[in-house]
Amino acid sequence: MKKNSSPETFRKKVRKGLWAKPTSGLAPGFAQANLVILDRSLAFDFLLFCQRNPKPCPILEVLGPGEIEPRRTAPGADIRTDVPLYRIWRKGKMEEEVKDIRPYFNTASVSFLLGCSFSFEEALTHAGIPIRNIDEGKNVSMYITNIKCDPAGPFSAPLVVTMRPIRDELVPRAVQITSRYASVHGAPIHIGHEKKIGIKDLGRPDFGDPVTIQKGETPVFWACGVTSTLGALSAKPDLVITHAPGHMFITDVNNESLAVI
Amino acid sequence: MKKNSSPETFRKKVRKGLWAKPTSGLAPGFAQANLVILDRSLAFDFLLFCQRNPKPCPILEVLGPGEIEPRRTAPGADIRTDVPLYRIWRKGKMEEEVKDIRPYFNTASVSFLLGCSFSFEEALTHAGIPIRNIDEGKNVSMYITNIKCDPAGPFSAPLVVTMRPIRDELVPRAVQITSRYASVHGAPIHIGHEKKIGIKDLGRPDFGDPVTIQKGETPVFWACGVTSTLGALSAKPDLVITHAPGHMFITDVNNESLAVI
Repeated sequence: MKKNSSPETFRKKVRKGLWAKPTSGLAPGFAQANLVILDRSLAFDFLLFCQRNPKPCPILEVLGPGEIEPRRTAPGADIRTDVPLYRIWRKGKMEEEVKDIRPYFNTASVSFLLGCSFSFEEALTHAGIPIRNIDEGKNVSMYITNIKCDPAGPFSAPLVVTMRPIRDELVPRAVQITSRYASVHGAPIHIGHEKKIGIKDLGRPDFGDPVTIQKGETPVFWACGVTSTLGALSAKPDLVITHAPGHMFITDVNNESLAVI
Repeated sequence: MKKNSSPETFRKKVRKGLWAKPTSGLAPGFAQANLVILDRSLAFDFLLFCQRNPKPCPILEVLGPGEIEPRRTAPGADIRTDVPLYRIWRKGKMEEEVKDIRPYFNTASVSFLLGCSFSFEEALTHAGIPIRNIDEGKNVSMYITNIKCDPAGPFSAPLVVTMRPIRDELVPRAVQITSRYASVHGAPIHIGHEKKIGIKDLGRPDFGDPVTIQKGETPVFWACGVTSTLGALSAKPDLVITHAPGHMFITDVNNESLAVI
């Protein structure tokens, strides 16, 4: 498939089962989203968890119970088939990965689409700030911090962060650029000093791959959407459906339209 | 009471029943909030209504069912007694105004605190942009527009806006300043051309007072928190509790901390 396919073209391929791979770099310019699907009975508390923790859990769209079309962010899409790979979780444990969740989706299923840092990575790149994990062809490094999210009902989680090494003199510019993207994780939550946020060894991320940190670079930490998955699973619901890591839902939302100023 | 009393001092006076007047100009520097209290059964749909309409309905804090202390925005406060004047609504109709809602509050009551434009008015004033309604000692002019909010469950509403006349050459600066305050209505939704948003006569606001518009000034429109009240009432719930217009809840949140950049 062409890297520059439109989001709609991409989603149609996915729907036909023709793409079950990661989405990094696809449909440049358009926002990709994390997905969490829960039962209606848990939807208020989970929405509140996201509202109380907007940096790791920035909501792009919430579908009403049983709704399958994200008509605000991807008109015509079907949330049950248009994500390349889903994970089915029972009581907080992963059961399987599937390409079609229609057997698991019902009239009480509430779908949450959450912003993803791919959006601001594009803005950083455009501003001449290189992204190490992209340059090294790796997944971004992710770490579980000692910062606790503000809980809501049965949902709680530690804050998970992504780390990107930034040349020391570019750190202020990286803060400025990502600050504009408040609805997709926004400004960093921490700069350097990883031990202060409970990270013992940058070479051993909890998720994703380690990347090279060069002399003259500062590790910069942004809130990460994986927090929303940990949050959803923390309540050990009978059923949670998420995207598989890196296999995001591609929306019709222009990244630039997410900038607050 | 001193205009410069701390939020806590002010709330204690209110709690004792010693202040049942509007709060405009009180506790300068601190955010004031709109209040909506609904039954838990409606809380998901109303939270979703706010999430889908963040410009008119910017959430500062949502208390869990039955919780009385807004510990994120006003530790030690009691949401049942610390608003100067409340309105009790039954099936969408106002029943009475009271100074204490303890008889109406129960373990299923969910309280929503929403941002208020007083926060950005302060920033505009500091930047040398005068606020006409403050200078004329009036309530801000509010209008029901022809713009529909994105509904959620049983909740829907037209977008209500406030209008402030701004000297033509200061309009760009007013946009910049209020853009910083995304969590308290943010940038204007419209500049001039009031007929395009369904306002027939600026001299006859739907709520609040008319103000003078001088030659060389442009009417500028911002989303207004009254939208959240209309939204809550649209579902005609058995019981809704709100603040009385202008009688806001004063939080401990610094206005400046609400700026996104």
